[in-house]
Amino acid sequence: MSVTLEDARRVIAAAEAKADEVGQPMNIAVVDAGGNLVAHIRQDGAWIGSVDISISKAWTSRAFDISTKDLGDNSQPGKQFFGIHTTNGGRVAIFAGGIPLSRDGVVVGAVGVSGGSGEQDHAVAEAGAAGF
Amino acid sequence: MSVTLEDARRVIAAAEAKADEVGQPMNIAVVDAGGNLVAHIRQDGAWIGSVDISISKAWTSRAFDISTKDLGDNSQPGKQFFGIHTTNGGRVAIFAGGIPLSRDGVVVGAVGVSGGSGEQDHAVAEAGAAGF
Amino acid sequence: MSVTLEDARRVIAAAEAKADEVGQPMNIAVVDAGGNLVAHIRQDGAWIGSVDISISKAWTSRAFDISTKDLGDNSQPGKQFFGIHTTNGGRVAIFAGGIPLSRDGVVVGAVGVSGGSGEQDHAVAEAGAAGF
Amino acid sequence: MSVTLEDARRVIAAAEAKADEVGQPMNIAVVDAGGNLVAHIRQDGAWIGSVDISISKAWTSRAFDISTKDLGDNSQPGKQFFGIHTTNGGRVAIFAGGIPLSRDGVVVGAVGVSGGSGEQDHAVAEAGAAGF
Repeated sequence: MSVTLEDARRVIAAAEAKADEVGQPMNIAVVDAGGNLVAHIRQDGAWIGSVDISISKAWTSRAFDISTKDLGDNSQPGKQFFGIHTTNGGRVAIFAGGIPLSRDGVVVGAVGVSGGSGEQDHAVAEAGAAGF
Repeated sequence: MSVTLEDARRVIAAAEAKADEVGQPMNIAVVDAGGNLVAHIRQDGAWIGSVDISISKAWTSRAFDISTKDLGDNSQPGKQFFGIHTTNGGRVAIFAGGIPLSRDGVVVGAVGVSGGSGEQDHAVAEAGAAGF
Repeated sequence: MSVTLEDARRVIAAAEAKADEVGQPMNIAVVDAGGNLVAHIRQDGAWIGSVDISISKAWTSRAFDISTKDLGDNSQPGKQFFGIHTTNGGRVAIFAGGIPLSRDGVVVGAVGVSGGSGEQDHAVAEAGAAGF
Repeated sequence: MSVTLEDARRVIAAAEAKADEVGQPMNIAVVDAGGNLVAHIRQDGAWIGSVDISISKAWTSRAFDISTKDLGDNSQPGKQFFGIHTTNGGRVAIFAGGIPLSRDGVVVGAVGVSGGSGEQDHAVAEAGAAGF
């Protein structure tokens, strides 16, 4: 009931295909049910600052069972979770690109994508999640 | 004049009962007069990202003798404490769920709750504080 | 196949009983299969510096599926893992008190104890693990 | 003159084959000339505490253009680099498993392996480097 390396590679392959289609090189990370990294890849030319962000997005999506896009909506100034981004040692990502991976209705991991606009990152993560 | 383990367990039991009633699994933490953790529990199915947040909320409420909800109101952009959430290594929580524990009008500890909406977290923390 | 809150409380109760017998107040922490905290208690009078250590010991024992006592033996100067204690953000504990929790031969969590001598911590952790 | 994702995957595949032969599941990471992560995989059942260590070993080997085994020999108490493991935020690994990747005599990246004994980690890293 978690994410195997084979699962992670399938998710990453689906996300890579989407990133190629979008034309923006990406960092793609997959974590398991415990939030621990299973696999990460950085496509050639993708931002080096996005290595950490892709992993943080994946972790965040599993840690709160929510997309980082939706968490971000709730974490703006004046909203109920504003300030959450400094908790957990700063690894809570509150912008689009992280999506939970579910099996039989239960979140068992997550994928995190970073390398382009929020819209691009989210679209690539969605493609990855669909590959799961 | 602090919080014993027995006190903390009573607070946690009261908070757990409320969380069960609300139907949302929670992380519940209690700190003593020194802001140091006395006890923490994560209910089955509660978010793993909320372990740290529940402890941070409890610490914050004792560190500033205020509920994190009220501190949050004063920490929005443009308000007097905006930016406080990155101090103290990032463990100042500025959203609802942390409440001081008082004895004879003196704050001697705090309870922190994380796992649901801000409203739910605050309600469960209030139930915990009432159990003190 | 992980550690529930009920499991954690049973482990903590067994460890507490042993700590009382030893006569040394302890911090006792339990983590699940993902290394995430399930429950922690600090007995009255136990060292506040041991809050973090008990959690780190539990995390370490699950992270490497080994007791921190045995890991420590391999992490002394000149040994194969010397230096491991600064990895993972410094939360690798290499002294006695952390013991894996196994079910059907698989490590599914761990208990960490801190508050006395290495021998005492290890004995209390063993009692906790036996209660699992 | 660096390490592409295709290179990293070839290195990882070679290392995985060796890990399978050794019979010990491993974390395998590859960094580029800038020391930044290109790819990481955790084989099913490999230690979660070794995610960070595999990346740190790869980073260390590129950061100092040396195997972590050799760096470790020079970093024991009394030796010229003793204490280096706490620098760089603690991510300098001084035990076997990290090996530089060279092209035309120039170090252009590194591979880091963690999951078994120092001897096993080093052997798997060597297999990975040979695949480069």
